[in-house]
Amino acid sequence: MDAAPVITILPEAPAHLADAVRDGGGVTAPLSDQTTGLIVLAGESLADLTDILKSHPAIRWIQVYLAGADAWVPLIQQYPEIRWTSAKGAYGQPVGEYALTLTLAMLRAVPTFARARSWGPPQGTSLYGKRVVIVGAGGVGREILRLVGIFTPHITVVRRHDEPVPGAERTVTDAGLDDALGGSDVVILAAAMTTATRHLIDARRLGQMSPHAVLINVARGPLVDTDALIAALAEGRLAGAALDVTDPQPLPDGHPLWSEPHALISPHTAETEAMIRPHLAARVRENVRSFRNGDPLAGLVDPAKGY
Amino acid sequence: MDAAPVITILPEAPAHLADAVRDGGGVTAPLSDQTTGLIVLAGESLADLTDILKSHPAIRWIQVYLAGADAWVPLIQQYPEIRWTSAKGAYGQPVGEYALTLTLAMLRAVPTFARARSWGPPQGTSLYGKRVVIVGAGGVGREILRLVGIFTPHITVVRRHDEPVPGAERTVTDAGLDDALGGSDVVILAAAMTTATRHLIDARRLGQMSPHAVLINVARGPLVDTDALIAALAEGRLAGAALDVTDPQPLPDGHPLWSEPHALISPHTAETEAMIRPHLAARVRENVRSFRNGDPLAGLVDPAKGY
Repeated sequence: MDAAPVITILPEAPAHLADAVRDGGGVTAPLSDQTTGLIVLAGESLADLTDILKSHPAIRWIQVYLAGADAWVPLIQQYPEIRWTSAKGAYGQPVGEYALTLTLAMLRAVPTFARARSWGPPQGTSLYGKRVVIVGAGGVGREILRLVGIFTPHITVVRRHDEPVPGAERTVTDAGLDDALGGSDVVILAAAMTTATRHLIDARRLGQMSPHAVLINVARGPLVDTDALIAALAEGRLAGAALDVTDPQPLPDGHPLWSEPHALISPHTAETEAMIRPHLAARVRENVRSFRNGDPLAGLVDPAKGY
Repeated sequence: MDAAPVITILPEAPAHLADAVRDGGGVTAPLSDQTTGLIVLAGESLADLTDILKSHPAIRWIQVYLAGADAWVPLIQQYPEIRWTSAKGAYGQPVGEYALTLTLAMLRAVPTFARARSWGPPQGTSLYGKRVVIVGAGGVGREILRLVGIFTPHITVVRRHDEPVPGAERTVTDAGLDDALGGSDVVILAAAMTTATRHLIDARRLGQMSPHAVLINVARGPLVDTDALIAALAEGRLAGAALDVTDPQPLPDGHPLWSEPHALISPHTAETEAMIRPHLAARVRENVRSFRNGDPLAGLVDPAKGY
């Protein structure tokens, strides 16, 4: 076993992650020329990180706290010789739970009930037997598949390659997305944000969805063309949209989505800090150990793909 | 096999239930002296039914369309020699799904997000690992146990007798309810409405619940003392309540629960007509066959218990 690597947690080290570094066989220390690994948490700006990399050439591994590494892609592509790892695959549990929450809430008309001030007629539809499209087959997509699969076997997973995902009725590539959308009741976005997936759900694809279908986004806001979505909802071409991520984000006050009766907006809350805490700690512990031992790191980001 | 029994569906026979009667070996016909079985749907008043029973002594079996037979208990006790069956056990699927929907929605702050007009801080808590109390071990209670059990093993079921319910961490009787409430994060009511369960959740029991706990009622409104609940929510002694059933019901306009920020009210929609359709048809088919063959009927109501 090699010597304990010096790991710096930025902007500062919470106790549970310092413990995780120690449990993984590393040593936490303030940033110095000894630092070989960085753990980057919320609040550490891209500008500061850029400066740090310029002046600390000993850094050979960077762990970012999010599952999606898209915010760091410019730096990742500038420093591809550094091993960058995200938390991809680590937050499936809370994000999958939240995707199911939003799916059930939209089908069962919970936002309508939450806003009502008067008893109305029964409404809502069941998830049982519905045709669900899940875009993305990473840790989150697979966890959504597991949970939604309790209610319906009619699940199509859309992924980059068409290797079948266990538990899915169908697995298709982007080329099969149009066809899948046409026959869907629920579309759940759990894909990585890349240049290829920007506006994956645009006006044309919204037009292929059924007027009774609902769209759920727990991934990244720009996967959806917001203006096209607003038009589709306003014209009744889509039954509803639940967005935990938006474009722009945060969604500014007065934005039309705030007053759209068929939209539900939440403030990127699929995984709260408290929810990810144990999962991020486990990932840090695992990766510090692998970094020390020279083993493959979990959640390694491919600089070319951006995730 | 005996001759096909004559079954009357009140107030009128929808095609799918007429088919179910036929498939079970019965004959549907308008009310007459030949009628030996009744199927009672929404819209058939208790007063009319009372008159019908007085003048049609050949009736030996009555199937009501709801899972809870409480609305018919006065008649059931007046005519205990008639076999009364409810749909108990038949609607576990939609009601269980809705109980999970409300549970996840409350924990994940969906009503708050639905009412927001501005981006706020992330909030919400996960169902994973929570301590859940399910009151009632009938078809609905067991289905809730199955679904909630995906997220947490810490489930206490409260039932009339303490025979363990498979999948529950603990099974207790009403005598153990107080203790169970004290250590709970979520309390889900799925019990039958009887004289014994009226105001089961009263001021004292609400006082035993934790200020961070949420209450879910998918059973009957009077299981909860509404005034005590309003006080508990207003004073922050309970984090929230999702009520699919209320007391009074329908909840009148201007009622304080409509403006309580920690309450979510839905109009008795856990099982809509469309959702129960296949399940009620299956129950009718099964019971017509059993009625014809002299076999035990499913969902038989005990006149003494009232469910």
